[in-house]
Amino acid sequence: MKLVRFDGGRIGVHDGTLVHDIGEALGGDDRGAFPPVAMVRLIAAFDRLRPDIEALLASGRALSVPAASAGLLAPLPWPNKLMAYPVNYIDHAKEMNSTGYAHVQGYFLKANSSLSGPGEPIVLPALPGREIHHECELALVIGREGRDIPAERAREHIFGLSCLMDITIRGPEERVFRKSYDSFTPMGPWIITMDEVRGIDSLGMKLWVNGELRQSANTRDLLVGIEEMIVVASSASTLYPGDIIATGTPAGVGPIRGGDTVVIEIEQVGRMSLPVVQGKGGANRVFLRPPAGA
Amino acid sequence: MKLVRFDGGRIGVHDGTLVHDIGEALGGDDRGAFPPVAMVRLIAAFDRLRPDIEALLASGRALSVPAASAGLLAPLPWPNKLMAYPVNYIDHAKEMNSTGYAHVQGYFLKANSSLSGPGEPIVLPALPGREIHHECELALVIGREGRDIPAERAREHIFGLSCLMDITIRGPEERVFRKSYDSFTPMGPWIITMDEVRGIDSLGMKLWVNGELRQSANTRDLLVGIEEMIVVASSASTLYPGDIIATGTPAGVGPIRGGDTVVIEIEQVGRMSLPVVQGKGGANRVFLRPPAGA
Repeated sequence: MKLVRFDGGRIGVHDGTLVHDIGEALGGDDRGAFPPVAMVRLIAAFDRLRPDIEALLASGRALSVPAASAGLLAPLPWPNKLMAYPVNYIDHAKEMNSTGYAHVQGYFLKANSSLSGPGEPIVLPALPGREIHHECELALVIGREGRDIPAERAREHIFGLSCLMDITIRGPEERVFRKSYDSFTPMGPWIITMDEVRGIDSLGMKLWVNGELRQSANTRDLLVGIEEMIVVASSASTLYPGDIIATGTPAGVGPIRGGDTVVIEIEQVGRMSLPVVQGKGGANRVFLRPPAGA
Repeated sequence: MKLVRFDGGRIGVHDGTLVHDIGEALGGDDRGAFPPVAMVRLIAAFDRLRPDIEALLASGRALSVPAASAGLLAPLPWPNKLMAYPVNYIDHAKEMNSTGYAHVQGYFLKANSSLSGPGEPIVLPALPGREIHHECELALVIGREGRDIPAERAREHIFGLSCLMDITIRGPEERVFRKSYDSFTPMGPWIITMDEVRGIDSLGMKLWVNGELRQSANTRDLLVGIEEMIVVASSASTLYPGDIIATGTPAGVGPIRGGDTVVIEIEQVGRMSLPVVQGKGGANRVFLRPPAGA
């Protein structure tokens, strides 16, 4: 099942052509609601709700709209946490001259407020002279609460997958801050549930900027693998339904600029195309301080 | 007003002696609910709900329990984000030999799942040879959504204050990971609303371990001040009602061990006393890798 948020906060199932509103089977959605946690609730109760969702879809009673005009939003805008593993492909480590690989660092976090959807632009802050890079990543969505999860049970905790971009300002400042601007974590176009995925250990992923292939990799080359990421994260932190793990980016990161179009595609998961817009705000004393010695 | 969560997810007002359940005025609480966002909803709608809360309290109809037996929980367990400013007192920068001051770094994040309450222990992971430190901090709770907030409007966005400890494993790993273990962000004993606070620019704060004073400072010595923290954070990220900003710790950080008792007190805000327990879990390959060269 491909789960989406759309049209101001409705929850839907995407069939490739149409989006079907399943709010009736869930007892509500995010329209007019704060905070927007309908997808977190759905994921936590999915096994129980699935028969009702399927019955609603089979009935033909659900509101259905063409996917192209559905207004797709961030599928999961308010998880407990949006985790990310740094430097998790050896070729990306080499291009960044980094030895801080994921297995010696653990996870970092991005702000939930940086999450955006497949129908929304990436808005670059006005930071003259700074490079802002695309990073292409597979996102895991956790389905089942757990702490100290052993490797052999890790897969049971994965609910689904999404495409995710980890947009990043390069520089010496705190990594979290450089990666947490609004719209810096596009995710989507949907969350695909694991029953529709045949294996996640060799998923190809690609990212293009203006039609030029920039990143191409495969999850088989992850330094810290899927199961181990769940083991490490849950050794420190209780994982909750809806938690997101961005699994790291391969080589080929590079700058994006206003007017660019960025496309991400992950085998079996999906594809989304996003415009990049140069914004006017976003400057602050952290990024605009004079260079050292000036 | 001193707002608390207690007894499995009730929302209450603490009067110093008793805790009064105000769930009736809110249309619900966190009992049996997932995710637990009742306090986020309350903060977002506080101006509208306050008359109903006051009427309920005046009626004497609210369930009231002795504070000591109320079972106080983390007041705000599922915000959009739990931000923190690193190295925000000059004397702490000196003791850590750090030049990475807050005004050159921006904010980092801690996992929401690390939040715990005034009635819960700090559970140390089993990481032999590692120091785990207490950090004493004032927490700001955001009340009003905003992006690119100017300094002169920053105070309007503060809903209230809490005491907060930023428990931290020392070491070279990712800062977020070292600070995000479950129970590593005790917060409380309540959120005090700003109408009950006379100025936040010179609040004294203290932290004791087993009765020995370890940290003593005043918010007047912050490197990045209260308003500027909101300006910087909101230049990057939309702030939402319920967002938490941990404002940084002063000098005097040091190790805590199983069996210790840690007390934090902030003028006008509150005081809480927490036991430290040595846990058995929490090890992982990030912390247990052999030393470099071995």
